[in-house]
Amino acid sequence: MQTVMNEDAWIDRIVARLPAYARARSHAGGLVLGIGDDAAIYRPAPGEDLVFTTDMMHEERHFLRGYPPDSVGWKALCRSLSDIAAMGAQPRFALLSLAVAPWVKTAWIDAFYDGFLALAAKYRVPLAGGDLGRAAQTSMDVMVCGSLPAGAALRRDTARAGDRLYVSGALGGGILGLRSPRNRAARERHLRPEPRVALGLALRRRGIASAAMDLSDGLSTDLSRLARASGLAAQIWRPLPGFPGASEADALHGGDDYELLFAAPPSVRVPSRIAGAPVHPVGELVEGAPGHLFFEGEPLRPAGWDHFAK
Amino acid sequence: MQTVMNEDAWIDRIVARLPAYARARSHAGGLVLGIGDDAAIYRPAPGEDLVFTTDMMHEERHFLRGYPPDSVGWKALCRSLSDIAAMGAQPRFALLSLAVAPWVKTAWIDAFYDGFLALAAKYRVPLAGGDLGRAAQTSMDVMVCGSLPAGAALRRDTARAGDRLYVSGALGGGILGLRSPRNRAARERHLRPEPRVALGLALRRRGIASAAMDLSDGLSTDLSRLARASGLAAQIWRPLPGFPGASEADALHGGDDYELLFAAPPSVRVPSRIAGAPVHPVGELVEGAPGHLFFEGEPLRPAGWDHFAK
Repeated sequence: MQTVMNEDAWIDRIVARLPAYARARSHAGGLVLGIGDDAAIYRPAPGEDLVFTTDMMHEERHFLRGYPPDSVGWKALCRSLSDIAAMGAQPRFALLSLAVAPWVKTAWIDAFYDGFLALAAKYRVPLAGGDLGRAAQTSMDVMVCGSLPAGAALRRDTARAGDRLYVSGALGGGILGLRSPRNRAARERHLRPEPRVALGLALRRRGIASAAMDLSDGLSTDLSRLARASGLAAQIWRPLPGFPGASEADALHGGDDYELLFAAPPSVRVPSRIAGAPVHPVGELVEGAPGHLFFEGEPLRPAGWDHFAK
Repeated sequence: MQTVMNEDAWIDRIVARLPAYARARSHAGGLVLGIGDDAAIYRPAPGEDLVFTTDMMHEERHFLRGYPPDSVGWKALCRSLSDIAAMGAQPRFALLSLAVAPWVKTAWIDAFYDGFLALAAKYRVPLAGGDLGRAAQTSMDVMVCGSLPAGAALRRDTARAGDRLYVSGALGGGILGLRSPRNRAARERHLRPEPRVALGLALRRRGIASAAMDLSDGLSTDLSRLARASGLAAQIWRPLPGFPGASEADALHGGDDYELLFAAPPSVRVPSRIAGAPVHPVGELVEGAPGHLFFEGEPLRPAGWDHFAK
């Protein structure tokens, strides 16, 4: 870090890097006030729900110093966008809090924002504000607000017994890319996952899903949460749609995939591809102890990533 | 930390600690969905603006391990509430991302939430969600959403030349309390500052302020930002309303006071007390190089807290 840069200069620098749509200050609606004031203002339309999510990442825990810094920015936003996708919402804007450690150089921060803003531009999510500082360890927290028609959010607690379970894409690539850096496809999945925004919107608009969430901590852990929220148990069936090279255990328990998990009533025809995403059946929800899992009929312990474990 | 606690158990523990109004799940409006899903949902009323702010704190930089943990939780929320107050908005809900270091014990987290939720209850701000994890360093990020009538926010960029400048309360107590832990009043100001929510609402509702912001980084640094945003220079006058025991330099440059700074046209009569807060004139906005300051006629360099300095 060059010492000539202070906080305000950095904010100017970030504003200068924003695409035009994110800098627009419209009073007709949408984002009214962005970076540079105490808070960002979003003017909602009547009958609209706004959804909010926030996700932190920390050096050594969620990424390493040697990672391409653009991938860190991309992934920081992806994690929150994935939550918005899981609600079936249209992402509207993001807030980013970033604290950088002494080892971080100007070029790292530039590349971090490049990655963040590349994903933001893809989904037209303005960066509306945030916080910037220094700390012993590099960390970031991303808040994304999304909107959808009032009452239409895809929740976790609304699945029913007998609903079939589906996941998008392939599972286990995130953990495989962490473990095997030379597997380029898996490495890319680990570094630059893709949030399933279009799929989430389609599941909501087409009335397919009875419940949904994103797979950030691994299928076993996340499905247990969805089942528990809905007061149900769940069965998982073989074969799981595994990422090429991933083991069945990777697909069952590996985190960091950012695919969507959803439930649909058995009466709903679920296509094998929705909004460009492959969709695979993986099980069903059943009456039973809330959150309990079975894999091919045998009890299964959730063994995904626990952010709060040592 | 006891190793038996995992993330989900912690979320349950937090939900159990929430006051009833924060757990209510109403479909009639307000907070529709809180902790426990991918995102929180807030249903706005037509004609309403929602404002969002986020502020991070880091161990060793914003607080020390030896600080009372309830004060850390209190202050983490105060910093964002103060931003909401500065916009003239009514706080509506908060999201909290918390990462704890290995030295943090269960009792510390409990006390942290006690402090956070005590301030949240005072202003009836539901904790609507967030993120929880572990990191090498304890850090937290608080997002608060506030609402106000469309277009009514108190901004930084709307002051005019000739507008008088005012601050609430007394300045320099935050830095005095950091430097002099045995000064109990200053220490309390440093550890448990009070966001000026009622004052911000009154300034907006009574049409007093032409611009406003909160004083988190010191009068000189923050006033320079307000003046720059409005394209003006600013004069500061003696005497400044100093916190008992604080020097004039503390009042000019000390951060962490969370008082409000606002501008009002000379035609507006500004009472010496508004919504319970003492209000003092401290200067005026003048034509000149944007952001330049003068103290009793002499040029003054902003010398407050820069979060991005080494």
